[in-house]
Amino acid sequence: MINGNTEIIAHIGYPTHSFKSPMIYNPYFEQAGINAVVVPMGCQAPEYPALLKAVFGLTNIRGALITMPHKVTTVGLLDEVTPTVRVAGACNAVKRTADGRLVGDMFDGEGFVRGVQRKGLNLKGKKVLVVGAGGVGCAISASLAAAGIASIRLFDVNSASADGLGQRLKQNYPQIEVQTGSNDPAGCDLVVNATPMGMNEGDPLPLDVSRLSASTFVGEVVMRTEMTAFLTAAKGRGCAVQVGSDMLFEQIPAYLEFFGFLTTTAENLRAVAQLGQ
Amino acid sequence: MINGNTEIIAHIGYPTHSFKSPMIYNPYFEQAGINAVVVPMGCQAPEYPALLKAVFGLTNIRGALITMPHKVTTVGLLDEVTPTVRVAGACNAVKRTADGRLVGDMFDGEGFVRGVQRKGLNLKGKKVLVVGAGGVGCAISASLAAAGIASIRLFDVNSASADGLGQRLKQNYPQIEVQTGSNDPAGCDLVVNATPMGMNEGDPLPLDVSRLSASTFVGEVVMRTEMTAFLTAAKGRGCAVQVGSDMLFEQIPAYLEFFGFLTTTAENLRAVAQLGQ
Repeated sequence: MINGNTEIIAHIGYPTHSFKSPMIYNPYFEQAGINAVVVPMGCQAPEYPALLKAVFGLTNIRGALITMPHKVTTVGLLDEVTPTVRVAGACNAVKRTADGRLVGDMFDGEGFVRGVQRKGLNLKGKKVLVVGAGGVGCAISASLAAAGIASIRLFDVNSASADGLGQRLKQNYPQIEVQTGSNDPAGCDLVVNATPMGMNEGDPLPLDVSRLSASTFVGEVVMRTEMTAFLTAAKGRGCAVQVGSDMLFEQIPAYLEFFGFLTTTAENLRAVAQLGQ
Repeated sequence: MINGNTEIIAHIGYPTHSFKSPMIYNPYFEQAGINAVVVPMGCQAPEYPALLKAVFGLTNIRGALITMPHKVTTVGLLDEVTPTVRVAGACNAVKRTADGRLVGDMFDGEGFVRGVQRKGLNLKGKKVLVVGAGGVGCAISASLAAAGIASIRLFDVNSASADGLGQRLKQNYPQIEVQTGSNDPAGCDLVVNATPMGMNEGDPLPLDVSRLSASTFVGEVVMRTEMTAFLTAAKGRGCAVQVGSDMLFEQIPAYLEFFGFLTTTAENLRAVAQLGQ
């Protein structure tokens, strides 16, 4: 029940129609007795810098969830960002510190990382392959780097994207071995499909699954179907897998912690979410 | 249930703690199946002009409810205002037209007017006395003028306030006879206490009730108790009365109509409101 003591989390993006966060966070806040509300705010690019400044001038703003098309722009509008933001080149969470500075973090990849960690994969010292260096591939790579991997192989059909991501990784994590140009999963502990391949029936697989070994953990970002053809093939080879929607629900506890709320589990969030059909 | 198609009504003021509108509008929207939400936005004076501009840059903004301390400032920030705003010197409702202009109206007094009209008082050609020329007194006088009264007597302990209001009334409604300097209710069809007198136990009455005739309708703005000492005295003299909270609930249908929503009755709003104790 919204009242005069309710704190706002601004969910800023455009268009708003496909926003899912209000239907995940708000039922959780109600369940947990937290007097806060995620409010969808449709905002186009020209209006965004002024809006971000204005919402953080509110006395009851708790934070902002930033989504398309503003994740990249946001990086340049803040006082402080994490290495994850710098590597991802994008920011999806903003809060104001007690002294009034705006700080940003990026949790798109953190959801993926928390998911595989909770499934038992310790990322410290691991070798990973990320196929796809678009927004989500960059975010996952950034969070994997923050989680302590030893080496990363990056592949994108647009090689400049993979190279750019590789350079940002080297700048921020000089100890991580970065390789670009190959999507061969052989020898990797973790393999991620961060391309849209799998969204549509008949899409080619993002890599040669015959090169996957059973000990490789395989993750997916496509959410349209739970078990994509890629995950099904990987599972058929004995691999442990993570479905795309885990990334969504696993990142929310990270956001809750960032905003300073009581946190919860991805399972509870799934149970209380009212996403409809 | 807030989702990506929800429209926002920004409830802007400071402090927000005593806001009541979210607990009146939002249960009504839910009952009526209207996908909109009143969102409290705490905003202090220096940040207000930029915030107002930014919220009306949102693609899903439906309107704004403006409250303390911004009602006066708002008048100067809009493209178009009603005569009610000009007389009241304040604005508490803003919307954006299809061509992008910001227009404002003022419903604090409209709630009072609708209330007495629905209780059977036809204001056309009537003589009224308004005691108190602060914000609420100005708003009620402005709405009474718009409703077609013939004459108005204005009184305030600060005579400059009553005089200023009188001048604005004459400028916008030259046909209305305006008198200032007396709080004598004799001969009036309607008498309004628009002062805070009655909020605290032992407050003096705002006027000499022995001068009230039974045919005079008596209204009150104080909401702390339903039947204030003033209303009780007026009722004792046989007068029909209107309690302060009627003003609150009667103004909401006016707001709903201004924003282009399906409207409802004050009774229904009272029934669904969740104002707590």
